[in-house]
Amino acid sequence: MRCVILSSAILLIAFMPQKKKIVIFFGDSITQQGAEPGGYIARVDSMYKLENRSGQFEFAGSGISGDKVYDLYLRMDDDVLAKKPDIVVIYIGTNDASHKFSADTDTDADKFEKFYTAILQKLKVKNINIILCTPAVIGEKTDLTNQQDGNMNRYAGIVRNLAQKNDLPLVDLRQKFLDYNKHFNTKNKESGILTRDGVHLNATGNQVVAEEMWKAIKSL
Amino acid sequence: MRCVILSSAILLIAFMPQKKKIVIFFGDSITQQGAEPGGYIARVDSMYKLENRSGQFEFAGSGISGDKVYDLYLRMDDDVLAKKPDIVVIYIGTNDASHKFSADTDTDADKFEKFYTAILQKLKVKNINIILCTPAVIGEKTDLTNQQDGNMNRYAGIVRNLAQKNDLPLVDLRQKFLDYNKHFNTKNKESGILTRDGVHLNATGNQVVAEEMWKAIKSL
Amino acid sequence: MRCVILSSAILLIAFMPQKKKIVIFFGDSITQQGAEPGGYIARVDSMYKLENRSGQFEFAGSGISGDKVYDLYLRMDDDVLAKKPDIVVIYIGTNDASHKFSADTDTDADKFEKFYTAILQKLKVKNINIILCTPAVIGEKTDLTNQQDGNMNRYAGIVRNLAQKNDLPLVDLRQKFLDYNKHFNTKNKESGILTRDGVHLNATGNQVVAEEMWKAIKSL
Amino acid sequence: MRCVILSSAILLIAFMPQKKKIVIFFGDSITQQGAEPGGYIARVDSMYKLENRSGQFEFAGSGISGDKVYDLYLRMDDDVLAKKPDIVVIYIGTNDASHKFSADTDTDADKFEKFYTAILQKLKVKNINIILCTPAVIGEKTDLTNQQDGNMNRYAGIVRNLAQKNDLPLVDLRQKFLDYNKHFNTKNKESGILTRDGVHLNATGNQVVAEEMWKAIKSL
Repeated sequence: MRCVILSSAILLIAFMPQKKKIVIFFGDSITQQGAEPGGYIARVDSMYKLENRSGQFEFAGSGISGDKVYDLYLRMDDDVLAKKPDIVVIYIGTNDASHKFSADTDTDADKFEKFYTAILQKLKVKNINIILCTPAVIGEKTDLTNQQDGNMNRYAGIVRNLAQKNDLPLVDLRQKFLDYNKHFNTKNKESGILTRDGVHLNATGNQVVAEEMWKAIKSL
Repeated sequence: MRCVILSSAILLIAFMPQKKKIVIFFGDSITQQGAEPGGYIARVDSMYKLENRSGQFEFAGSGISGDKVYDLYLRMDDDVLAKKPDIVVIYIGTNDASHKFSADTDTDADKFEKFYTAILQKLKVKNINIILCTPAVIGEKTDLTNQQDGNMNRYAGIVRNLAQKNDLPLVDLRQKFLDYNKHFNTKNKESGILTRDGVHLNATGNQVVAEEMWKAIKSL
Repeated sequence: MRCVILSSAILLIAFMPQKKKIVIFFGDSITQQGAEPGGYIARVDSMYKLENRSGQFEFAGSGISGDKVYDLYLRMDDDVLAKKPDIVVIYIGTNDASHKFSADTDTDADKFEKFYTAILQKLKVKNINIILCTPAVIGEKTDLTNQQDGNMNRYAGIVRNLAQKNDLPLVDLRQKFLDYNKHFNTKNKESGILTRDGVHLNATGNQVVAEEMWKAIKSL
Repeated sequence: MRCVILSSAILLIAFMPQKKKIVIFFGDSITQQGAEPGGYIARVDSMYKLENRSGQFEFAGSGISGDKVYDLYLRMDDDVLAKKPDIVVIYIGTNDASHKFSADTDTDADKFEKFYTAILQKLKVKNINIILCTPAVIGEKTDLTNQQDGNMNRYAGIVRNLAQKNDLPLVDLRQKFLDYNKHFNTKNKESGILTRDGVHLNATGNQVVAEEMWKAIKSL
């Protein structure tokens, strides 16, 4: 008898509707646009559906134009934690790097790390899986003359360190974009390879980001 | 008889005091400090004296702290042309690159080139020899995270193009400094290799600049 | 018997050491320096002791150089709430106004208000008394040519509105400083009236601020 | 006989076609737009024609978007002196004030005065009549919260001083605009009173500027 009961239990589990994992992409205008048709979040959703994993994930974007890391920190209770996500993909830093006009640059980079760390703490406490992304590009020129290259390298470096220090998966979009441009941007163009305007993703950029994101999410 | 007269003429020329060539170093605070004891201009002067060329050159610095290219243009009549130089070494661009916080960056780079070109025209009209120098560094870090690397590369590129377009000798200090740091700045330090503070030359920096300058002046 | 017991109870209360009210001054470098000898917090403490109110208040400064409103928000749990204050005096905005170089100024002012409001919410939830202060001056010139006058008036206006909207007491330091300078800064000096450098308080400035602060605290 | 000859000479002068005085408006985008239909230069031309002074003046605009005082200095030989004007109306300073993000503000204001003075010298040497204009507004709010009010007051002050020091007529557009807004901008609007966007003139603004300009030109 005992055997039979056990079997039914197994069957029950097998037919129980699986709870979908909620994935929130948390960021700035790039993520805001990523949720639009053709955006990188929509593309992740398509990839996932093609792989017959339906019922496994639910993707949502929480991107607001102009956001810096401290804006994410302010709105994370309402916009992220309240939605009880299983996975949060943090994609921030472009506005932080580009608007950093202060002379005392070290302090500002310090603050970026401080707020980023505070966000990670709040997510860890809730046992939420986290994926970090480096900010990609401000300008796609390959001859090291993009005005913000120095800042972008610095902020990307901070994100890489945070991933390592906290043992968290990293989607290194900056490295990906630099490599891609080295191959395909042979005319040293300011934009038009992976971005429309040097910052915001065109169709190819959204596809490249989606592939990297999906790879990281599946590997969790 | 004719022979005798000719000989006297030759003798006369040989004993006539040779007119010294006036060399003006025209720039910002780096050049202002270059004229101080131990500065790069003082070192060029020492090198030149060691080579037993005395009587051939006279070196003068015209550097003013904070100057950008348009400041040179404004004061060049009084500070350069009035002194009837034979050679002018233009060493400008660091302040232009670092203070360029405007969003409309292309226009600013355009203006840098426009004013630089106007200076070159005014010197050419007077048949003055010109040597161009690229701005060297703002920060000596070698991992591409100096905040101003993008701007510095852009402005250095403009100076390189101007040298080529006008067929003028170039002292490529930026390239020199990057190469030097690649070899000797193994700890990715912000300053202390060729500069005191990331911008202004220390003793080694003054020596390196002096050697490059003197090589270019002798080659004219 | 019951009467007697009651009396003892009353006596007990009368002799029970009164719990001191903890007052935290929460702000930037002005408050950091305010906690030093001769600073405004030290002066508030002296005023209070002169009034024979000993045992009633305990004053503490929590000012960090360079802080903007979002820095206060980040560190308020550790630096303010953990100390269980009865009264918090918020004195912030000078760095917010002066470092605001972005073109899109309205958004930045919006963010100032948003973070300020978030701080107020967190304090209200804990039933902590709050006093708001307007940022005072960046430059003491009286002819309306201080570079940051426009921003300072705007940010001071936001703080005034927040005080009114939340029905909270306001120490209007900006108005106080403008009035004081109108009377005493007859030579239109940049600094030296209430500040050492246009921003940080000199002895007179610390005294004026202390008097305003103490008045507000006593009135709660 | 002598009498008769003299008379003929007088008659000859009377019928000789009068040489028109060339007036050049020299400035930035405000002046560039001032030359368009409905712009302030077009309106000055209409006013002048209504007063039956035809043949007396010829008006031309030389405004380039984004120009600061040093841009005027660079292009004044080609764009102004080459056209042999009788009168030059200088209307510059708005971009100088608004783009001034450097920390070392005094130097920048110094440079504004230095370049402005250099322009005046070049015009005086050629005996050209000069009219100075203060930069008007960046933002029309009347409660002293326009971000650039401090800078604008400072730069307007420099122009006023230059007019006085050089004994030159001044069109004080800033004062005019502040007075006008005080009367008519009762709702403290950012723009829409004399400007479209806080800086560039709407129809009313062009009319007000034209009236002031024409008054000054007639008074020469």
